[in-house]
Amino acid sequence: MLTIAEQREQFAAMFTRPLPADVGSSATTLGGRPALQLRITTPRPTGDAVLPGGPVLLYLHGGGFVVGSARVTAHVSAALLRHLNGRAISLDYRLAPEHPFPAAPDDCLAAYRELLDSGIDPHRLVVAGDSAGAALAVVTMMRARDAGLPMPAAAVLFSPAVDLTLSGASMRSKDGVDPFFAPADLEWLFGQYAAGSDRSAPELSPIFADLTGLPPLLIQAGSSELLLDDAVRLAGRAGADEVAVTLEVVPRQPHVFQLDDGSAGAAAALERAGRFLATRLGGAKEAS
Amino acid sequence: MLTIAEQREQFAAMFTRPLPADVGSSATTLGGRPALQLRITTPRPTGDAVLPGGPVLLYLHGGGFVVGSARVTAHVSAALLRHLNGRAISLDYRLAPEHPFPAAPDDCLAAYRELLDSGIDPHRLVVAGDSAGAALAVVTMMRARDAGLPMPAAAVLFSPAVDLTLSGASMRSKDGVDPFFAPADLEWLFGQYAAGSDRSAPELSPIFADLTGLPPLLIQAGSSELLLDDAVRLAGRAGADEVAVTLEVVPRQPHVFQLDDGSAGAAAALERAGRFLATRLGGAKEAS
Repeated sequence: MLTIAEQREQFAAMFTRPLPADVGSSATTLGGRPALQLRITTPRPTGDAVLPGGPVLLYLHGGGFVVGSARVTAHVSAALLRHLNGRAISLDYRLAPEHPFPAAPDDCLAAYRELLDSGIDPHRLVVAGDSAGAALAVVTMMRARDAGLPMPAAAVLFSPAVDLTLSGASMRSKDGVDPFFAPADLEWLFGQYAAGSDRSAPELSPIFADLTGLPPLLIQAGSSELLLDDAVRLAGRAGADEVAVTLEVVPRQPHVFQLDDGSAGAAAALERAGRFLATRLGGAKEAS
Repeated sequence: MLTIAEQREQFAAMFTRPLPADVGSSATTLGGRPALQLRITTPRPTGDAVLPGGPVLLYLHGGGFVVGSARVTAHVSAALLRHLNGRAISLDYRLAPEHPFPAAPDDCLAAYRELLDSGIDPHRLVVAGDSAGAALAVVTMMRARDAGLPMPAAAVLFSPAVDLTLSGASMRSKDGVDPFFAPADLEWLFGQYAAGSDRSAPELSPIFADLTGLPPLLIQAGSSELLLDDAVRLAGRAGADEVAVTLEVVPRQPHVFQLDDGSAGAAAALERAGRFLATRLGGAKEAS
């Protein structure tokens, strides 16, 4: 078994991509945590300037709550950013096992709150995440709602890991089909994060949560993943709770296929996700 | 209790709309059954002619397998048709209780087969339906697949009634919220249609079917309907079976809200559905 440090190195080596030449990145902090801020540095074809108060994308990376970083998925944030005429901030929330639940949601809510406190119009703020980060996006919106904070304009959730009890039918039907995970891998990761907490609690498994009041959601999943039914059931839960939700299942794609920037499926999915966010930004022009 | 004839009259009075002035309709037959053929009679802004072999939309109306007709939902076919530069054929399949299962799927498959036999390119053929008609669309595609027939290019399913066992969680959670149905209403309708057949059979309840090989599906449902979980579970089943599926749940909308042509929600949903079909037609230009 690899050490935690080795797992993080391996994950970073597998998924990190060079950023496009026209994407500038800078280290920052948000909610007391390190973060990576991204901007498109070339002028847009429309000639629009990027405004200081312009759209902001808060991106929460995946990695099973144990691995991953703001940098690893920065290319995903950058792809979404092309539709937004603003900036993206990818957060380095604290990871398990050093920092189990609720450290990560605490960091994410602090980051969300700082964005609002800095004067960002919530109608110009969108959230996205992949896998564990998509779960944290949902939990952050639930916590923000419960704290009386305004919702972002929309959220995109790639392959959300939102059932830490592993109760989905796809946990069995896609075992052996999923190229990344066996159920035992997820069991181990989620055990590090839950660290004895009740995994069926709504903040650990948002498929069991009340999602009332959340903004429009786009959920994407691949048909080849153990976590397929997490996405389907989250869509069902959100819909039943009066949330405007769109679910897309893309055939023969694995978990977080959007991260594989070499694939046509990833590019098309990110294009749809970017348009989804852009069209829901208050006052924003739809990206071309 | 109303007679069957009275129920059909009441349903028709509630949902039938005048057709727009530029939509021409003519009676025809398809697969041995009466059908209504629709065309847009004014030239399109693009100046494109409607070609004889051009896109065809086969529309299957809803009404619980007992009521409804090709004419009642003709305005829905017409709304989709605006994106397709072709013609729509809305089928009067046989209804229960006079003609229980499998009369309706037999008629639908015969209609589908006649379209193919007439030389329609399946890449230029799309299918849509609402409620019971959406279920028949799924069953028709399953039967066509099993008969070795080619699939249509895509299908749109409005509030599909695809679980005649009424096992969805929304059958309880939306009881009293759904403005159209109580579970007993559905129980009665489905009983007329199943007439003693096993309601969990895949051709009666396609959420229990193997959907492998079906074309891209767009499923739309309202959050206020008893049948919400039919839509969610059909999306899950299709996705697990490697079908490209998009599910949209629209908040605070009832069953088949697309039929209410006075509502903004209906217009927007039909717009998305029409674009979905248009972009999947082989060789077609995307509708503007």
